[in-house]
Amino acid sequence: MPEPKRIVVLGSTGSIGTQTLDVVAAFPDRFEVVGLAARSNQDLLAEQAERFGNPRMWLFDRDGIEGLVEAATVPSADIVVVSVAGVIGLLPTIEAIKAGKDIALASKEVLVAAGELVMPMVRQHGVDLRPIDSEHSAVFQCLQGYTSDQIDELIITASGGPFRGWTREQMANVTASAALNHPTWQMGGKITIDSATLMNKALETIEARWLFDVPMDRIKAVVHPQSIVHSFVRFKDGSVLGQMGWPNMRLPILYALSYPDRLTNDLKPWNPIDSPTLTFEPIDEQVFPALGLARDAMQVGGTMPCAFNAANEVVANAFLAGGVGFLQITETVARTMERHESLPPTLENLLQADSDARRVAREVMATALR
Amino acid sequence: MPEPKRIVVLGSTGSIGTQTLDVVAAFPDRFEVVGLAARSNQDLLAEQAERFGNPRMWLFDRDGIEGLVEAATVPSADIVVVSVAGVIGLLPTIEAIKAGKDIALASKEVLVAAGELVMPMVRQHGVDLRPIDSEHSAVFQCLQGYTSDQIDELIITASGGPFRGWTREQMANVTASAALNHPTWQMGGKITIDSATLMNKALETIEARWLFDVPMDRIKAVVHPQSIVHSFVRFKDGSVLGQMGWPNMRLPILYALSYPDRLTNDLKPWNPIDSPTLTFEPIDEQVFPALGLARDAMQVGGTMPCAFNAANEVVANAFLAGGVGFLQITETVARTMERHESLPPTLENLLQADSDARRVAREVMATALR
Repeated sequence: MPEPKRIVVLGSTGSIGTQTLDVVAAFPDRFEVVGLAARSNQDLLAEQAERFGNPRMWLFDRDGIEGLVEAATVPSADIVVVSVAGVIGLLPTIEAIKAGKDIALASKEVLVAAGELVMPMVRQHGVDLRPIDSEHSAVFQCLQGYTSDQIDELIITASGGPFRGWTREQMANVTASAALNHPTWQMGGKITIDSATLMNKALETIEARWLFDVPMDRIKAVVHPQSIVHSFVRFKDGSVLGQMGWPNMRLPILYALSYPDRLTNDLKPWNPIDSPTLTFEPIDEQVFPALGLARDAMQVGGTMPCAFNAANEVVANAFLAGGVGFLQITETVARTMERHESLPPTLENLLQADSDARRVAREVMATALR
Repeated sequence: MPEPKRIVVLGSTGSIGTQTLDVVAAFPDRFEVVGLAARSNQDLLAEQAERFGNPRMWLFDRDGIEGLVEAATVPSADIVVVSVAGVIGLLPTIEAIKAGKDIALASKEVLVAAGELVMPMVRQHGVDLRPIDSEHSAVFQCLQGYTSDQIDELIITASGGPFRGWTREQMANVTASAALNHPTWQMGGKITIDSATLMNKALETIEARWLFDVPMDRIKAVVHPQSIVHSFVRFKDGSVLGQMGWPNMRLPILYALSYPDRLTNDLKPWNPIDSPTLTFEPIDEQVFPALGLARDAMQVGGTMPCAFNAANEVVANAFLAGGVGFLQITETVARTMERHESLPPTLENLLQADSDARRVAREVMATALR
């Protein structure tokens, strides 16, 4: 039995955070919690701390970004789980990498906004950056034993969200509660809205580009309504590997923590006859323009993907709050990108781009509402 | 560019042999043919020899098993492709392993009959034994980067053959030409009959047991009529990998030859939207008893799997020749196994078991016809 891995969870009271702690609790000999950070849910945080032997605790609303960075760099930690909502995870991730921690990344926004900055740091400091996203965990699992230069294409699967097959006219007046009704995955609010717009898939193509060092034009997406195949890798010889399982984040969480080991657990195993029919269909980019926006952002590069992500965060949350229509989400992101001037992706420029794009997105929304 | 790999093909005029040579011909810088052996098709063999720079040639019907062994041990060869029909490949495979050659194995009967004898030799001589069977190539590809002890189950896919969904009554009077009409794969005659009886799947579970060092009770089979997913591996944490592609043997042949490289080629690449619906269903073992016979044979062990295979070879070929009914194939195998007394799997015992079981199978068929 190896020494237990010492784990810090950033965003411990969110959807991924609580599932991470459930996974950790099932393997007390393998994992030890040495730090917990949450945004504002002090009661749940205190409960979690008691359950896991009273590790150190931080509240973002009280301790600020300095608290998150302190959590990310706890000297005893081996792995930092970054599962905060949005790009707020960027600075803590960077500091954790510099401190030599392995990263289990659920906050895809970190790589979307700053992959060009973060990935060289990962290599320089010799740490592991393992995906918790189910699609990227699938690719990561398929790529064990293979190298990036053997990849022909990554084919990321998408459930299609609650509005699969709808027209733009049908989607014009949908409410947040309709968009929150995801057909296959139980997730947090922002990511569920991103799934309805397919922005989630757009963010994932950018995340995959950085995680697996594959050019954007070799990253495709396909609708797979059953959410059983979590993604595919086609290799240069034409052979395709895919990873399958029930739509349950506990499996990618466990693999990111236990890697390279695979631990026996009591999750329900998937069998092909449990899913007698698996279907695939193309994404209608006329109706769902998100993937094209991601390609545009990456084509420009620099701080543009950061602006793309920031605008989406603002407007997705505005939609959740009832402040904007569904079709305005991608529309606002597009308008914000038009007004963003890309700069080289230094940390300073990225933080400025993030802040600027949030302001511009709010202006765009306000103008549209007038 | 590495040195070309020098290749011998045993069974070069058969279905796998000719496809192997097509693959080799597409990569003249990577592969060189240094030996060709066929059973009896002298004209095609001579043509092939001319096409590949006149390597050495053997005809089994003229040179006997000594010729095959000589071919398998050509001093300059790096890899021996064993694609003869049936267990006749056993001795040449053993001698090739002893001579330090890597093996690309299409003749599953070799491992079915003698896996317990052959696999320790593979390890002792430090050679690679790579599968050409599409299902085993799929498992092999999924297992790169993983270890046998991480496997929970292998799930081998089966097209179901031309009689999928039929009753035993419906199959009682089928002809060889009906059985040869395989829905998805173009293959040689004997293996196509094995696909119709599901004996092919039965042989494959035994082959997988030896190739991947997985106990028989962890090897399952599932019907997948589209023949796109070539097999699955479930790992101990419940995650499942699968390999997909068009049903085309050239891909597993190429990978067995180029391993660990993956070579760009002009085979049609597979995309999920090319196969919008993939389906899975259980195998009806009441109607198709072959898999149960394989489990019984492995439960007894020793020379029993060899007898199981030998009986099947005799009766499948008898069915092809119109000499026995379709349902008698598995029936004859079962009766032959009942009359076989298993001994430890030494080479001598295996060769004797093979010969005895062929005789017994013929007797069983003759008795049934009386």
